[in-house]
Amino acid sequence: MKVLLIGATGTIGKAVAERLSGQHQIIAAGFRDGDVQVDLGSPESIKALFEQVGKVDAVISTAGLAAFGPLAHQSDDDYQLALNNKLMGQVNLVRLGSGYLNDGGSITLTSGILSRQPMPGSASVSMVNGALESFVKAAALELNGVRVNAVAPAFVKETMAMMGMDTSSGISAADTAKAYEAAVSGEMSGETLDAPNFL
Amino acid sequence: MKVLLIGATGTIGKAVAERLSGQHQIIAAGFRDGDVQVDLGSPESIKALFEQVGKVDAVISTAGLAAFGPLAHQSDDDYQLALNNKLMGQVNLVRLGSGYLNDGGSITLTSGILSRQPMPGSASVSMVNGALESFVKAAALELNGVRVNAVAPAFVKETMAMMGMDTSSGISAADTAKAYEAAVSGEMSGETLDAPNFL
Ligand SMILES: NC(=O)c1ccc[n+]([C@@H]2O[C@H](COP(=O)([O-])OP(=O)(O)OC[C@H]3O[C@@H](n4cnc5c(N)ncnc54)[C@H](OP(=O)(O)O)[C@@H]3O)[C@@H](O)[C@H]2O)c1
Ligand SMILES: NC(=O)c1ccc[n+]([C@@H]2O[C@H](COP(=O)([O-])OP(=O)(O)OC[C@H]3O[C@@H](n4cnc5c(N)ncnc54)[C@H](OP(=O)(O)O)[C@@H]3O)[C@@H](O)[C@H]2O)c1
Repeated sequence: MKVLLIGATGTIGKAVAERLSGQHQIIAAGFRDGDVQVDLGSPESIKALFEQVGKVDAVISTAGLAAFGPLAHQSDDDYQLALNNKLMGQVNLVRLGSGYLNDGGSITLTSGILSRQPMPGSASVSMVNGALESFVKAAALELNGVRVNAVAPAFVKETMAMMGMDTSSGISAADTAKAYEAAVSGEMSGETLDAPNFL
Repeated sequence: MKVLLIGATGTIGKAVAERLSGQHQIIAAGFRDGDVQVDLGSPESIKALFEQVGKVDAVISTAGLAAFGPLAHQSDDDYQLALNNKLMGQVNLVRLGSGYLNDGGSITLTSGILSRQPMPGSASVSMVNGALESFVKAAALELNGVRVNAVAPAFVKETMAMMGMDTSSGISAADTAKAYEAAVSGEMSGETLDAPNFL
């Protein structure tokens, strides 16, 4: 399969690229790095990406910006970042990208288990994660011949280490990548795959 | 209780006002009609509403615009309407309004079961409904002394009749209002109350 992986240079994306690259041809998209560049915050940039790359068998997004912060201090800009980048950036991958998938292809977005297991400070992140999970469920009803799913990662060990947190409850990026492989190789559509269920 | 009901002049809002008005004092807010006016699409208008009304015991929103339409035809504007009005309008009721609630008060927003039971044409509506349900779950962790929940109505009989649909699977606005009463009088926080469970 030819797989366009958006966010390929990130913590989760690198692990997904590594897991899939034995069997599949990966086109690595990043914001600054990667084989090709894209800004999820810009529909024009997403259009240009698909025009440049052409037809593929799978699109995976392991990208999407959203900021944590106390409910009382999160600004309008924090909400707009989550909405424009993590949410609409990925929704636009479906809207603008579904026509570039070969028949039987799939699109896999990234939400996060904070949609259903929130923590203090996650309000805008939980909000867009929940939005993505409901969106893929609905969009799947109207995408003929193309599957669409979300992977919901739990906190990744490497990210927790970077933030100076205790990593014992985390799941490694390599283990998280298994859920993306399941989404690409499986038959499901409209589903959210919780990464902790795919270890 | 003093209850600020936003969307009080609408199909569901009128039924909620009727159900609660025996026991509670209702301040009816509408877009053009009602005791007071507000535009959910404008944070300034929401701020002005709370300044005008002052402290209350409950805020209920039965408002929020979002448009149905085929995934392939929904425009950027359709997504922006759903995000700015139904989603952020109601999220901003929590962000800007929680300080106007008396201790032990509650905020009840409106999502819709399309978040989890989508239909063709509901992608942007399902998306913002899912966002609202995850938002209240997360926000509840940080709102001290104020409960926040969502009611998820199913298709309302009166709305189905207005659209020329068969109404046999619908739930009346009066029955839908029971879920709002449960949210206001109950103890739960961070929950989504599916209207079909409160008949
Ligand atoms: N890590 C976790 O613990 C965790 C848990 C739950 C959910 N998630 C979700 O998983 C996704 C990936 O997380 P991560 O930790 O792997 O992220 P990350 O390490 O920060 O990597 C982000 C990736 O996205 C790219 N990117 C940044 N801004 C972009 C933009 N505007 N448009 C397109 N691509 C952009 C980056 O490219 P460059 O390197 O070129 O800048 C990079 O490839 C996010 O949606 C995150 O919310 C992560
Ligand atoms: N009806 C259903 O079958 C159904 C099913 C599931 C979910 N829902 C959800 O339930 C909510 C209410 O639905 P409904 O059918 O009762 O709606 P509706 O009959 O169209 O009533 C809308 C209400 O919102 C007010 N409104 C309109 N634009 C507004 C704005 N920009 N700012 C503030 N208020 C505004 C209206 O005020 P004016 O009268 O002054 O214009 C009216 O009070 C919506 O969120 C809808 O998505 C409805």
